[in-house]
Amino acid sequence: MGKGRLEAFTDGVIAIIITIMVLELKVPQGADFSALASSVPVLLAYVLSFVNVGIFWANHHHMMHATDRIDGRILWANLLLLFWLSLVPFVIRWMEEAGYTAWPTAAYGVVLGMAAVSYTLLQWAIVACNGRSSRLAAALGSDLKGKASLAMYAAAIPLAFVSPWIAVVLYVAVALIWFVPDRRSPSVSGRSLPFDSSSCQRPSLSS
Amino acid sequence: MGKGRLEAFTDGVIAIIITIMVLELKVPQGADFSALASSVPVLLAYVLSFVNVGIFWANHHHMMHATDRIDGRILWANLLLLFWLSLVPFVIRWMEEAGYTAWPTAAYGVVLGMAAVSYTLLQWAIVACNGRSSRLAAALGSDLKGKASLAMYAAAIPLAFVSPWIAVVLYVAVALIWFVPDRRSPSVSGRSLPFDSSSCQRPSLSS
Amino acid sequence: MGKGRLEAFTDGVIAIIITIMVLELKVPQGADFSALASSVPVLLAYVLSFVNVGIFWANHHHMMHATDRIDGRILWANLLLLFWLSLVPFVIRWMEEAGYTAWPTAAYGVVLGMAAVSYTLLQWAIVACNGRSSRLAAALGSDLKGKASLAMYAAAIPLAFVSPWIAVVLYVAVALIWFVPDRRSPSVSGRSLPFDSSSCQRPSLSS
Amino acid sequence: MGKGRLEAFTDGVIAIIITIMVLELKVPQGADFSALASSVPVLLAYVLSFVNVGIFWANHHHMMHATDRIDGRILWANLLLLFWLSLVPFVIRWMEEAGYTAWPTAAYGVVLGMAAVSYTLLQWAIVACNGRSSRLAAALGSDLKGKASLAMYAAAIPLAFVSPWIAVVLYVAVALIWFVPDRRSPSVSGRSLPFDSSSCQRPSLSS
Repeated sequence: MGKGRLEAFTDGVIAIIITIMVLELKVPQGADFSALASSVPVLLAYVLSFVNVGIFWANHHHMMHATDRIDGRILWANLLLLFWLSLVPFVIRWMEEAGYTAWPTAAYGVVLGMAAVSYTLLQWAIVACNGRSSRLAAALGSDLKGKASLAMYAAAIPLAFVSPWIAVVLYVAVALIWFVPDRRSPSVSGRSLPFDSSSCQRPSLSS
Repeated sequence: MGKGRLEAFTDGVIAIIITIMVLELKVPQGADFSALASSVPVLLAYVLSFVNVGIFWANHHHMMHATDRIDGRILWANLLLLFWLSLVPFVIRWMEEAGYTAWPTAAYGVVLGMAAVSYTLLQWAIVACNGRSSRLAAALGSDLKGKASLAMYAAAIPLAFVSPWIAVVLYVAVALIWFVPDRRSPSVSGRSLPFDSSSCQRPSLSS
Repeated sequence: MGKGRLEAFTDGVIAIIITIMVLELKVPQGADFSALASSVPVLLAYVLSFVNVGIFWANHHHMMHATDRIDGRILWANLLLLFWLSLVPFVIRWMEEAGYTAWPTAAYGVVLGMAAVSYTLLQWAIVACNGRSSRLAAALGSDLKGKASLAMYAAAIPLAFVSPWIAVVLYVAVALIWFVPDRRSPSVSGRSLPFDSSSCQRPSLSS
Repeated sequence: MGKGRLEAFTDGVIAIIITIMVLELKVPQGADFSALASSVPVLLAYVLSFVNVGIFWANHHHMMHATDRIDGRILWANLLLLFWLSLVPFVIRWMEEAGYTAWPTAAYGVVLGMAAVSYTLLQWAIVACNGRSSRLAAALGSDLKGKASLAMYAAAIPLAFVSPWIAVVLYVAVALIWFVPDRRSPSVSGRSLPFDSSSCQRPSLSS
């Protein structure tokens, strides 16, 4: 019951975050190709952030699908996740102004890392409220990808002070692992992106 | 089940895109008519983009109506569509600052064209997951208008470098073809705008 | 079925318009009372616009409640209404920069007047699709207030060039007439604000 | 019936308010730690406002859950609440520009205090329409926390002119009392944050 409203509110906030990031982008200073080219690094930061927020949304979508009950702890764990996600446009703007330098690049890792921590807290709150039913267990799985993401963000933050580019490579890598199909049946792997069509009707293009 | 949430999220993003475009508009510099008049070209770009995004929304509305199942591929094809639509305010702002010159005008075509490509990918993902049922087939039709739109965007991009106004005329033409009633029964033509009242109760104004 | 999505989309756009108007407001230039005082005229414009958009939303809410079917004409009449409402923050920003002078004040009337015209078109489209059923007829009523609003906006636009304050008084008056209770049973008067509690359980504060 | 739409609209506005506050934040002026450090006071104001708006949302969520009927009075009391909440980003921006000085700090208390007053009016309108049923009574409780919040905001406004920091301490205290668990059964205490798991299935982590 309250679940629908939690989903709708989360969708609203994520929709705004995703769209507002573009609002932040500075328009190319000029009408030629070189002006556009100088916007490319920021556009790529936008693409990466769009994908990252999209991954959170898709995972949230699958986890809530398997959730039956909601309590106050879940509400607030969810708000904590949204809080950290809402800082993504803020950090991107900082990267845009200060370039891919150490502090803004590390801050990007802190924000996404804390969002991943909040997501884990949300998972715990949902399990504590709903029990580890088979449906929920299937949706959560061993959460290998979630743990790997957390480790990579934790590594990226100090490495940003060695070279921001190491951190950027790690951020891209985190996004990519979510697109790697699981070896196990995808319907069991939960937080992996469900590229299986097992839940789909087989396409009958000839009919 | 997940379909409702996909629709709601899409609606949220599109609602923000449509509204944020006006936020971008620069206010007339002065309190008289000439100040307002100098805002007219940008206001027209806003009107055109509002109509274009509205067409995507109306088509999305009809396609999802005939869709029963959702998988990860559909989620991500939908996110790709939203990504390109979210760049519309960005390009409009560039056109506002740099005028109707070659590069911004071409970029407008790239963004809308890639949105149209993403829409086609979304269509394929939905057919792959749901099969070509009669309801879905009816909603998709031969998609002549979709193909014509893609061809016109592809033509407009290089033509913007000959003259931006050729591109602008093509963009207006793409929007207009969606308002042309289909010769066939509209309920069969899917992505056409359903100006039929066949699904409506006949109006009985005298009663 | 599609009605739910139309309502949700409309709510999304109106929620953004209402919230974005404040984003536009310029912060008082200083930390004292006189700085705040100089923001008061713009804050009042915000209050008036919030109330006006709120009236459109409440009326939309009641009309859609009595609507069963949706077709493409309704979708587009609704988008036209949203288009004009989305220009409200734009006009407020102009009034903020140029003050309560003739052109911005007249433009405010044009935008709200065209929104009222679009609302009437939406009403017609809904009646054409759903028939004038008793539920819909009750929700629409004789629409005296709607007609009076249109007339007052039409009068305010030229009068803004005589004195902007006449127009402002008319805009305030239009908002106020929606708060006047109807002499007839409110449940019959449709677009009036339903301050009746006839649909409510009688409060039993003593229990 | 109309309740769902009221909730969705409220969620939309609150989602935008929460996200737009970050949009307002000024990016650190530089790429080093000192630049970030100088943003900390504003970031803390953002955190406090996020928590405050989150508390309103969570309470609204629980109150509406126990509400069955909606009338025009409830619609407008709800709009009044949203109006005051929409001014939160405006006041934060003022605090950001003018610092934690008397007037902006007092204005913050006025805005949150008026939101709390509007929330109380909304409560009354809901009780007047729905009656004090056992479910609603449980959701409202004695509302001790609500009354304490109002008193503390009322005290903070004049005290901001003695020292803004007294007001800030009071604002933080108001937020904290909502996180204090009730001595009574939380399911009876209504507007308290429901940290109980009584509505949850007992977690069975061993299974």
